[in-house]
Amino acid sequence: MTQRKIEVGVLGATGMVGQNFLRFLEGHPWFEVTWVGASDRSAGKRYAEAMNWNLEGAVPESVAGLTVAECNPAGGPRLMFSAMDASVAGEIEQAFARAGHVVVSNSRNHRMEADVPLLVPEVNHDHLRLIPLQQRRRQWKGMIVTNPNCSTVTLTMALGPWKPFGIQKVIATTLQAISGAGYPGVASMDIVGNVVPFIGGEEEKMERETQKVLGDFAAGEVRPLQAVVSAHCNRVPVVDGHTVTISVALEARPSVEEAMAALERFTSVPQQRRLPSAPGRPVVVLRQADRPQPRKDAARDRGMACFVGRVRPCPALGLKMVALAHNTIRGAAGAAVLNAELMYSEGLLD
Amino acid sequence: MTQRKIEVGVLGATGMVGQNFLRFLEGHPWFEVTWVGASDRSAGKRYAEAMNWNLEGAVPESVAGLTVAECNPAGGPRLMFSAMDASVAGEIEQAFARAGHVVVSNSRNHRMEADVPLLVPEVNHDHLRLIPLQQRRRQWKGMIVTNPNCSTVTLTMALGPWKPFGIQKVIATTLQAISGAGYPGVASMDIVGNVVPFIGGEEEKMERETQKVLGDFAAGEVRPLQAVVSAHCNRVPVVDGHTVTISVALEARPSVEEAMAALERFTSVPQQRRLPSAPGRPVVVLRQADRPQPRKDAARDRGMACFVGRVRPCPALGLKMVALAHNTIRGAAGAAVLNAELMYSEGLLD
Amino acid sequence: MTQRKIEVGVLGATGMVGQNFLRFLEGHPWFEVTWVGASDRSAGKRYAEAMNWNLEGAVPESVAGLTVAECNPAGGPRLMFSAMDASVAGEIEQAFARAGHVVVSNSRNHRMEADVPLLVPEVNHDHLRLIPLQQRRRQWKGMIVTNPNCSTVTLTMALGPWKPFGIQKVIATTLQAISGAGYPGVASMDIVGNVVPFIGGEEEKMERETQKVLGDFAAGEVRPLQAVVSAHCNRVPVVDGHTVTISVALEARPSVEEAMAALERFTSVPQQRRLPSAPGRPVVVLRQADRPQPRKDAARDRGMACFVGRVRPCPALGLKMVALAHNTIRGAAGAAVLNAELMYSEGLLD
Amino acid sequence: MTQRKIEVGVLGATGMVGQNFLRFLEGHPWFEVTWVGASDRSAGKRYAEAMNWNLEGAVPESVAGLTVAECNPAGGPRLMFSAMDASVAGEIEQAFARAGHVVVSNSRNHRMEADVPLLVPEVNHDHLRLIPLQQRRRQWKGMIVTNPNCSTVTLTMALGPWKPFGIQKVIATTLQAISGAGYPGVASMDIVGNVVPFIGGEEEKMERETQKVLGDFAAGEVRPLQAVVSAHCNRVPVVDGHTVTISVALEARPSVEEAMAALERFTSVPQQRRLPSAPGRPVVVLRQADRPQPRKDAARDRGMACFVGRVRPCPALGLKMVALAHNTIRGAAGAAVLNAELMYSEGLLD
Repeated sequence: MTQRKIEVGVLGATGMVGQNFLRFLEGHPWFEVTWVGASDRSAGKRYAEAMNWNLEGAVPESVAGLTVAECNPAGGPRLMFSAMDASVAGEIEQAFARAGHVVVSNSRNHRMEADVPLLVPEVNHDHLRLIPLQQRRRQWKGMIVTNPNCSTVTLTMALGPWKPFGIQKVIATTLQAISGAGYPGVASMDIVGNVVPFIGGEEEKMERETQKVLGDFAAGEVRPLQAVVSAHCNRVPVVDGHTVTISVALEARPSVEEAMAALERFTSVPQQRRLPSAPGRPVVVLRQADRPQPRKDAARDRGMACFVGRVRPCPALGLKMVALAHNTIRGAAGAAVLNAELMYSEGLLD
Repeated sequence: MTQRKIEVGVLGATGMVGQNFLRFLEGHPWFEVTWVGASDRSAGKRYAEAMNWNLEGAVPESVAGLTVAECNPAGGPRLMFSAMDASVAGEIEQAFARAGHVVVSNSRNHRMEADVPLLVPEVNHDHLRLIPLQQRRRQWKGMIVTNPNCSTVTLTMALGPWKPFGIQKVIATTLQAISGAGYPGVASMDIVGNVVPFIGGEEEKMERETQKVLGDFAAGEVRPLQAVVSAHCNRVPVVDGHTVTISVALEARPSVEEAMAALERFTSVPQQRRLPSAPGRPVVVLRQADRPQPRKDAARDRGMACFVGRVRPCPALGLKMVALAHNTIRGAAGAAVLNAELMYSEGLLD
Repeated sequence: MTQRKIEVGVLGATGMVGQNFLRFLEGHPWFEVTWVGASDRSAGKRYAEAMNWNLEGAVPESVAGLTVAECNPAGGPRLMFSAMDASVAGEIEQAFARAGHVVVSNSRNHRMEADVPLLVPEVNHDHLRLIPLQQRRRQWKGMIVTNPNCSTVTLTMALGPWKPFGIQKVIATTLQAISGAGYPGVASMDIVGNVVPFIGGEEEKMERETQKVLGDFAAGEVRPLQAVVSAHCNRVPVVDGHTVTISVALEARPSVEEAMAALERFTSVPQQRRLPSAPGRPVVVLRQADRPQPRKDAARDRGMACFVGRVRPCPALGLKMVALAHNTIRGAAGAAVLNAELMYSEGLLD
Repeated sequence: MTQRKIEVGVLGATGMVGQNFLRFLEGHPWFEVTWVGASDRSAGKRYAEAMNWNLEGAVPESVAGLTVAECNPAGGPRLMFSAMDASVAGEIEQAFARAGHVVVSNSRNHRMEADVPLLVPEVNHDHLRLIPLQQRRRQWKGMIVTNPNCSTVTLTMALGPWKPFGIQKVIATTLQAISGAGYPGVASMDIVGNVVPFIGGEEEKMERETQKVLGDFAAGEVRPLQAVVSAHCNRVPVVDGHTVTISVALEARPSVEEAMAALERFTSVPQQRRLPSAPGRPVVVLRQADRPQPRKDAARDRGMACFVGRVRPCPALGLKMVALAHNTIRGAAGAAVLNAELMYSEGLLD
């Protein structure tokens, strides 16, 4: 690997997503955070004083002393992770890409644009081939690459291995963790001992993003999967880990055994290239009757795998299962870092 | 109404379901608990000393002083509510029915037998017409009538108003409260800050019971609904109230407005006869975007209504919605009491 | 009782404390809410449209249609309950009292002023004798009466019966419910599966308010109890009900039996006058080893009693016990309403 | 360090405490689990099949394949960690010690015996000097060493640095995690959204064990600290981490600054000898106003430190603070392993 680490910046470093990036990147073998950007209000302060650390433990020492910069594309390292709020991410990310930065974003703003890859590296690494198109069309030296919404990541990782069977219909119900809503996020009065059967905009994102992630790259574009996807999104009093129950209709009508085998032997480019944040197996099938469970399983394999259980026949669509992934790691910060690792391995960071 | 109340007994009165019966029946205008039965271990003790009261508040005063009897069909009032554990309910309920008792049971043992009504009074009150058949075939003077599993009650109340549209396919995911598992039930180490995506036997019950409840009585028998039902059952850290997300395919393809209207104008025999435990409306449609929620809504209308929200198109099946009912009231004790009220109104308790 | 109900208003009616007032006052035998005041932003709207109802169930029908008024002392009924945020309550309450209104406030602003009663009716009803002094000194036709902070209510109700023994030292640790922090209040990320050992300003309030509530009225003033009070305040993931562990040194050194007897036979003016919101007994001693518990006990007796358990020797101070009261009822809305009932019974509302 | 690791066994390996031992010992630099003992019912099975793994993640691979042995002192390695239930630990531990085993126990049975060290290595490492006495008196070649109850560990670690000030009185209220009760342990119906103000036997243990741990070894015996200790023990819906609020009277009446300094500069034998499981600092003072918090802090420093915050004056006793430690690590498995490391460093395992 490289002798010197690649310098990276985090846009929106003081929010909860930004904090997750800093924690995930601590001790990363390739990347080193040397720049943190936030709103004008925080700019100029020491990072440790510029925010309230909302995660477990303490602020990583390697970044506590960094001075917070304004989110100005004139400065900072070439590779920028974006953890900005959607209300500001759109324009700032474009300004950075225009100025030559490689923006690896967790924000939703550009996900559905036709020339922006919406990556889950194990599932659609070839969507990176949109980059030349994006750079040409937008006349950028830099680029923007995105990862999907946290619930979409869970669903597409679980479905990816079944894509060869021909996915026709998907009905998914989520039980989503509170950390997905940021900080302060969900009021405790709304969720202690309760369930909230609604998350604004989430179902639409999950339905459309799933079709794009599972789509094929062909003739210079990504064609969304022509499958019907229906989502029911719910918030539950769980700290980390989105659980998703999935019913799916597959054209090839595999048996439960064939479907299980496809999940268990699934492996992909991030595993083959031994990317540092890639899980050993993208999908880990748990065979105990009552797993996966968010508090017990989401953080396994450093929070980067998708855990699947209860693969069984669905009387309505053919197959059903339960999937789980860690929403702030595999569904956000870790997803973006794995995207950057994939891009490095393709020479896109050179 | 009657001058004197009808005496009733509770079989299995010391368990958590039995406690729920006693609480629900306190102050009932027609029924008065004068007899409580439990295992030999408890028999002979004062009720208040025979168990640990696991519910909120204190033991109802009207029953605290009753002496616990053995579950012996020789004694006790004619009308018996059964809250017995399934491990013993089968034979004891039959013995009571054989001896002439009217057994209104919450246990699962006899639910799927062809000559036993599985009642949700607003949905299939006519299934009571199985009783003459049951009595003839089994040569009983008494009878057994059952209510469905708590998650089935929620699902069938929400679907009942749509039966005229022709139900073809149903996919339901439950987020079930811990009180459904009794006491001690779910270990706190398994559910605090967690979700358990499995409840033993629940999905099978929910799938089959729903077909029976929604079936038609014709030619002396109940013919199960020929719809496909698929359930995903999950336990969540909620005390009371089962939430169910539902996708459904209807033959008549009603619009969202038509479907909403059917829910809102739905009313049935228990409402027409003003049965004491009948909710004003069986299905209450909540129009706020994020409702129904178990902690905020399940206990409304004395816990006897089914609350529905988020009726909207489902890209996969046609329509989707969220339903909620109070699992220990409408899904258990209250369900059985309403069954008994319906039976009284039909003259079956005379 | 009166033929016509007394009209009352609620200042700050749209916040969570205000909502609690409206719910508690629904169906009150003496008082009828005919006026709701809130910030300019809400003024002019129908109450039901002016806020998000954060409590269980639905907006009480009797107030849903009221038009929200500005908090202007020129209008509204004489009796005003104040549920305003402390940031605005100070001046507005004074303006209303100056204009002749009887302000019965739950806000903290005036609690510690020498001529303002800080009432727990069962404990210090005679502090109402400060009113003539207050009116004279401030040249008000109206008046301000306050109730203590919710944790202070719990502590003083439990200690009240022991005041005759001579209270010398008190060490109290609270486990406080999230509803005490209003809405949105505590972020779920801070409290799900967690404890927060700090509530800003709470310990100071609890220490000083307890001394005032337990103080004696003599020679025209309230002299704070000369006992040392030390509080440790914690937030726990409970919805309603503040639990307090208490160690106390009493001059008379009563035995556990004598101390228990004092709690159990305690009764006071609100009970003697049968005030509508007064609990049958101010202090209910629960004898089960593991009670009181907030979710199971706080709402008993309509949430107006203080539940005490585990009275036992304290090796350090003499006696220890656990106390519980419902923080949004007995500790807020219900406290203020009981204050108003006491004032009515004294002729102060004439 | 040793070339070859020291073989160790775990008595009671299939219970939740045993599972915690196996997880904590995975990858330990000195010790290697080569033997697991359990009840006859499990004996003979592969460990992975003999129990349900109740902790996060999966069974450690290094022990999954071990065959479960009966708890018979004839076999197994010399060093035995005991995770047995108190109902059986008494006799079996004695039998192992008599047969020459070094029993490092987490069970309560022998803790209060005069010749058995009750160790918190940073606080009372010299209590190991009881061992020669124990061996002589009982004519054992082996020995028994114990660690205190999990809440006592938290309290004594926080108080240890203040022992030189002369501890006179302590009043402690605990907010204890559910994992302290084992599996299935606390019923979810008792603790979701609730607090239970009682833990059987816990207060007595905490009061007496604290006196012994903080006592002095002199003239061949441990003389309990002559301080009064009063405990209020509560269960809260937290998974891991016991929080304790502490008021304390110190003879020397140090200022808050002096008391803080004593906590922060405290270090002891385990730190000096760099024992593998010793935390860098036994007591970590957190200066944020609202810390320590169990979910955010208990697992820091591998769960082996005691986190203290909010050191401030107590009007009643002099000083107050909040302490937190991880109950299944520092309060159980990790405590015992650190005890064994201390014993190794003293040559007691040779």
